Amino acid sequence: ANSILSSYGTSVFEVMSRLAIETQAINLGQGFPDDNGPADVVAAAQEGLADRPNQYPPMLGVPELRQAVAKHNKRFYDLDVDWQTETMVTSGATEALSACLFGLIEPGDEVVLIEPLYDCYLPMIRRAGGIPKLVRVEPPRWELPYEALAAAFSDKTKLILLNSPMNPAAKVFTPAELGFIADLVKRHDAYAVCDEVYEHIVFDGLRHHPLMTLPGMRERCVRIGSAGKTFSLTGWKVGYVTACPALLQPISKCHQFLVFTTPPNLQRAVAYGLQKGEDYFTGLAAGMQAKRDRLSAGLAGIGFSVQPCQGTYFVNAGFEALGFAGDDMAFCRHITTDAGVCAIPVSAFYQDQGTAMRTTVRFCFSKQDAILDEAVARLARHF
Amino acid sequence: ANSILSSYGTSVFEVMSRLAIETQAINLGQGFPDDNGPADVVAAAQEGLADRPNQYPPMLGVPELRQAVAKHNKRFYDLDVDWQTETMVTSGATEALSACLFGLIEPGDEVVLIEPLYDCYLPMIRRAGGIPKLVRVEPPRWELPYEALAAAFSDKTKLILLNSPMNPAAKVFTPAELGFIADLVKRHDAYAVCDEVYEHIVFDGLRHHPLMTLPGMRERCVRIGSAGKTFSLTGWKVGYVTACPALLQPISKCHQFLVFTTPPNLQRAVAYGLQKGEDYFTGLAAGMQAKRDRLSAGLAGIGFSVQPCQGTYFVNAGFEALGFAGDDMAFCRHITTDAGVCAIPVSAFYQDQGTAMRTTVRFCFSKQDAILDEAVARLARHF
Ligand SMILES: CSCCC(=O)C(=O)O
Ligand SMILES: CSCCC(=O)C(=O)O
Repeated sequence: ANSILSSYGTSVFEVMSRLAIETQAINLGQGFPDDNGPADVVAAAQEGLADRPNQYPPMLGVPELRQAVAKHNKRFYDLDVDWQTETMVTSGATEALSACLFGLIEPGDEVVLIEPLYDCYLPMIRRAGGIPKLVRVEPPRWELPYEALAAAFSDKTKLILLNSPMNPAAKVFTPAELGFIADLVKRHDAYAVCDEVYEHIVFDGLRHHPLMTLPGMRERCVRIGSAGKTFSLTGWKVGYVTACPALLQPISKCHQFLVFTTPPNLQRAVAYGLQKGEDYFTGLAAGMQAKRDRLSAGLAGIGFSVQPCQGTYFVNAGFEALGFAGDDMAFCRHITTDAGVCAIPVSAFYQDQGTAMRTTVRFCFSKQDAILDEAVARLARHF
Repeated sequence: ANSILSSYGTSVFEVMSRLAIETQAINLGQGFPDDNGPADVVAAAQEGLADRPNQYPPMLGVPELRQAVAKHNKRFYDLDVDWQTETMVTSGATEALSACLFGLIEPGDEVVLIEPLYDCYLPMIRRAGGIPKLVRVEPPRWELPYEALAAAFSDKTKLILLNSPMNPAAKVFTPAELGFIADLVKRHDAYAVCDEVYEHIVFDGLRHHPLMTLPGMRERCVRIGSAGKTFSLTGWKVGYVTACPALLQPISKCHQFLVFTTPPNLQRAVAYGLQKGEDYFTGLAAGMQAKRDRLSAGLAGIGFSVQPCQGTYFVNAGFEALGFAGDDMAFCRHITTDAGVCAIPVSAFYQDQGTAMRTTVRFCFSKQDAILDEAVARLARHF
């Protein structure tokens, strides 16, 4: 077996979801909504199954979706994107990330990362031959550590992998922070792979700014979006990549051999979804913001120290005041089995769990209000 | 950009399908059927979209499909498979292959391959750090070169990647050949990744034997199947892996980070499909065999030297007698643009195209009879 991958365990999201299913706990761990996605988008997928070919679509994606991705870039970020040379559809944002990392990294290249980070980043970078260079943002403000970040870049830096809005920190990078990152990328003649799956899940009037929109960054950034997160259809596994032709080409060379294509009916339904009116996108953010507030208030009432949340599906909460003796993993297992509510330990988002925070857990609030209320009631009864 | 992947062009299947679309040629290139799959399987997928969650299914696949894969192994090959520890669902057989190669290969490991071979094998093996060791089977009998194969194995051999039924050779490996391969694998303490996507598309009363069924091979083989090929639904991208726990574990470690999951409604529909009666599977093979005969007779009538075909969607045909001056790639482009029929050059299935056959092209016959007839008529008019 490959030694790098063997050194990693099963993904914490999978581990906790299995435990939630076994114990019939409310699953506020793995990040997914519990509704079934917009009915019209689902209906479009049903029609496509019957009316359109179920055979291999073009390797880069069906033209309808690639055109919709280009238009979406224009509409929300004023980016001019040529759908034929600058867009690609993937089997979820996870596959998009894999194709970017295996397609761009040459063994020995350094990759800059910001902790806490999503759990596939490190194994895929290392399996691709990259050398991770980690800096940390620290709660509760999660500000970019300018000096440490500058020090993490070198003449061996191939790219920075940037997740904004950031999971699990629930942070939206500020224009100033993005400007600083852009300068480093340009100064080191590097690239940025931008995991922007939560681009439409941003709160309190904040705005998500793709790094790609900054001066000089159009040709240095790969932007990754997710129909799973934008349309509450995480099981569909439809992602999309936007990048200049010189970057998209090596990424597509990887995609064609790694997975090749994505189901065409799901692609066409997502193309339809991306053309929904403004109210869909503002409604998504407003709905999630209300859920954030609902869960945050409930958790605070129990005694959790709830951290601010600017975007994503997630709110982080410290359990120091609850009188639990173990670490965050033990706490998550405990509340899953004993209180019937599952969460994710934030230490799982660090390479070195020993030096990570061990008293904070991540709750997913993209759930029906009644479920959130029941989760809070269960935790309140327990503590 | 990664130097290994950059050295490869766009997949020949994609290149020729694009040309076929541009020129509105009949596409007998890329291997896919032109019907829409079994209506009941498609209906099951439609129902699943509306009635079941569209969110992340378990990382290894939905239990229904994993159980169906285990039962399918028992029913067709008398293999006892534990669905919980020995099956996994992937986003197509291509992703299954990627997960196997990146999950099992350690840089420097040797991988034995038999040419002609499917075009993702070499780039993915090399990107995973493996060192390809190639042997060739030669037309028209495509017999296994016993001595060369034995010489290709060494104490550095990690695995053999075996495709049976074999694309594009249209060869089904004999029990004697499989026995020889199994002995080499055991003698060198190696593994076999078995790409068996055409397992149900075998003709003339021949039987497909998974290498996994041979003595001592149960714990040394990974078996890959494809709903795309078994249910004529290539766009769905649902594949499945069967392997003993010790092999499946590192493969699943890769899958979880590479792609993570596959759409649950498509998985459940495939689970339904795998439980279809005997007549579905025999009907699939019989229908394809009739198409093979129809196209082969038509091509022979034009003057192609049509090779025998024991399985797969493909028949190979030499064009020596047709008075065309160029090589097989030129021939395929020529018939696409000038005769309106697209095919794939067989030299594209070789690492070293210079020493490959250059007068043989591959035609895909998994098409409606009227389309096959029209293709033959067009070629007949042209030559
Ligand atoms: C691919 S499973 C993880 C889902 C997710 O985005 C998260 O929980 O962080
Ligand atoms: C993934 S595209 C190629 C389809 C196929 O199996 C072939 O044409 O050989």
